[in-house]
Amino acid sequence: MKIKAYGIKDKNGIAEPFYYERNVGDNEVSVKIVYCTIARGDVQFISDDWGDTKYPLVPGHEIIGIVEGTGANVTALKAGDHVGIGYQQEACFECEFCKEGNEQFCTQQKAIGVHCYGGLADHIIIDNRFAFKLSPALRSVNSVPLLSSGLTVYAGIMRAQLPANSVVGVLGAGGLGQLAIRFLHKMGHEVYAFSHSPEKKEMVQQLGAEFILSSNLNTNKKFDLIISTLNAPYDLDAYLRILKPQGKFCIVASPLEKQPISLGLLYDYAQRTIYGNYVGNRKQMTEMLAFSEKHNIGSEVEVMPFSKVNEAIEKVRTGKIKIRLVLENDK
Amino acid sequence: MKIKAYGIKDKNGIAEPFYYERNVGDNEVSVKIVYCTIARGDVQFISDDWGDTKYPLVPGHEIIGIVEGTGANVTALKAGDHVGIGYQQEACFECEFCKEGNEQFCTQQKAIGVHCYGGLADHIIIDNRFAFKLSPALRSVNSVPLLSSGLTVYAGIMRAQLPANSVVGVLGAGGLGQLAIRFLHKMGHEVYAFSHSPEKKEMVQQLGAEFILSSNLNTNKKFDLIISTLNAPYDLDAYLRILKPQGKFCIVASPLEKQPISLGLLYDYAQRTIYGNYVGNRKQMTEMLAFSEKHNIGSEVEVMPFSKVNEAIEKVRTGKIKIRLVLENDK
Repeated sequence: MKIKAYGIKDKNGIAEPFYYERNVGDNEVSVKIVYCTIARGDVQFISDDWGDTKYPLVPGHEIIGIVEGTGANVTALKAGDHVGIGYQQEACFECEFCKEGNEQFCTQQKAIGVHCYGGLADHIIIDNRFAFKLSPALRSVNSVPLLSSGLTVYAGIMRAQLPANSVVGVLGAGGLGQLAIRFLHKMGHEVYAFSHSPEKKEMVQQLGAEFILSSNLNTNKKFDLIISTLNAPYDLDAYLRILKPQGKFCIVASPLEKQPISLGLLYDYAQRTIYGNYVGNRKQMTEMLAFSEKHNIGSEVEVMPFSKVNEAIEKVRTGKIKIRLVLENDK
Repeated sequence: MKIKAYGIKDKNGIAEPFYYERNVGDNEVSVKIVYCTIARGDVQFISDDWGDTKYPLVPGHEIIGIVEGTGANVTALKAGDHVGIGYQQEACFECEFCKEGNEQFCTQQKAIGVHCYGGLADHIIIDNRFAFKLSPALRSVNSVPLLSSGLTVYAGIMRAQLPANSVVGVLGAGGLGQLAIRFLHKMGHEVYAFSHSPEKKEMVQQLGAEFILSSNLNTNKKFDLIISTLNAPYDLDAYLRILKPQGKFCIVASPLEKQPISLGLLYDYAQRTIYGNYVGNRKQMTEMLAFSEKHNIGSEVEVMPFSKVNEAIEKVRTGKIKIRLVLENDK
């Protein structure tokens, strides 16, 4: 089928109508797109900040849509189903990672908006195993950021295997950080949000966290887990020092530049851990969606129509938007 | 009782006869010292490299000795038993860490040669729970370095929970690194030793590892675990890049200075982990000793008498000794 998308032809270019052909494979579904987010990561990719962007680029990897067509082998989904789509279009389902259920590490995978055309389009065609059926409660525009940001912080948190009532910190109170606070609060932990923005104090308190100004990090709390969502430089050592001896530091975002670390803080009278988390697997996606539905977790969002895509990209690029931005297909 | 030790009175001072009084508590044993190691860590502590050395200092925290006296509550040991002693003299046995069996994180603990007088002495008095009964096979002078170095690398490795036949790397081929290679080889893993010293190639091959020159790190191997025993700077990013997507990097030593790291390597299409390991707990000590006995694991050592302690310290300080140095009580 012929798919109409918004394509960016070169570095920092504007999004323009772009058409490509793709047919629905036996394991695939075609999905009419309803919502798609644009986040700072997408804009960094448009600007080729990592040096590996391939143009033309169709950005967008947090999608809610409605199934239209299904391939011959597809039984789990049918036309009319609402689905959520995250970071992945396909995987080989044969390698060591796929076999253990961690398709996010498959070297043959296609990451949406990176290795294949993304969600700023009328449709997307995707392996049905990466289209997650959404109950009515999860079809809201506020659920869209769950599909990648939500999964990333949820999986990162769950991998810490925290005991009940742990003391946890969230570094950064943007899109990822706010979702992390919501999850941790509803999991029943004692949550602290570190931010350099005093104006975020009230907001993070409403989400269920105590506010700690990161420029003045004097707390006598000792943390079981700190999750960092920051892509600006910060004093990593300072946060390692306030971890308990067996504490964990989870990284889901980071500055592009190398950061200094005192490695001795990881073992001196301690066995501290730093671990990265890259999105999550399908099992974690299903768990995260169920948890979000149960506890009514979503993101504050601003909604703009697809037809204003370039205005939206500019808003994210210039930091003029303080909450998550979702584009709605106005066709 | 009055204990004769070798004490260092000030920074970089020489070891001189030093006497202190300590009686055997109800849970304690007095141990006549037979062997005690001197390693680079002891010399760094003598030189106050970390800025927290308290003088007078009696160094030495890898000890083999023979029980002489036992406190009223001691049933596990009796006079004449050969025991191994590691990094710890006592702990509170009441805090959260002690209760879970991780006394090495107890904030009330006394680390030998740091918070209390160490093994360069005729005797040491120690909580019987930190004196590990040694079978005849483990009383050899080659077993002495197991008691802290061996425990540190063994516990670090075991915490990775490696599947059988993993691909593992050991960074540095000194005292810690050689023991790590021996353990990993006997565990049945595929072991590679990274070193900047080509002259160590034959030695590491004899221990069971393939040699990779660290100055020319082109290997197409992907590692499940790399354990770093280096206290000199190295290119951490280069080693993170050769980890599998779920690979682990264990740190048991490190340079004093901050090191640069690209944090994105921990999560970009991966969930890599860096964890520190500080010695081990009593269960791990018992397991490590049993494993070492079963597989005949020990260190190559040079032996000198206690009376030549200053000559020994100087040898370690100037790097003139390439294997582990054990002092033997020549009284």
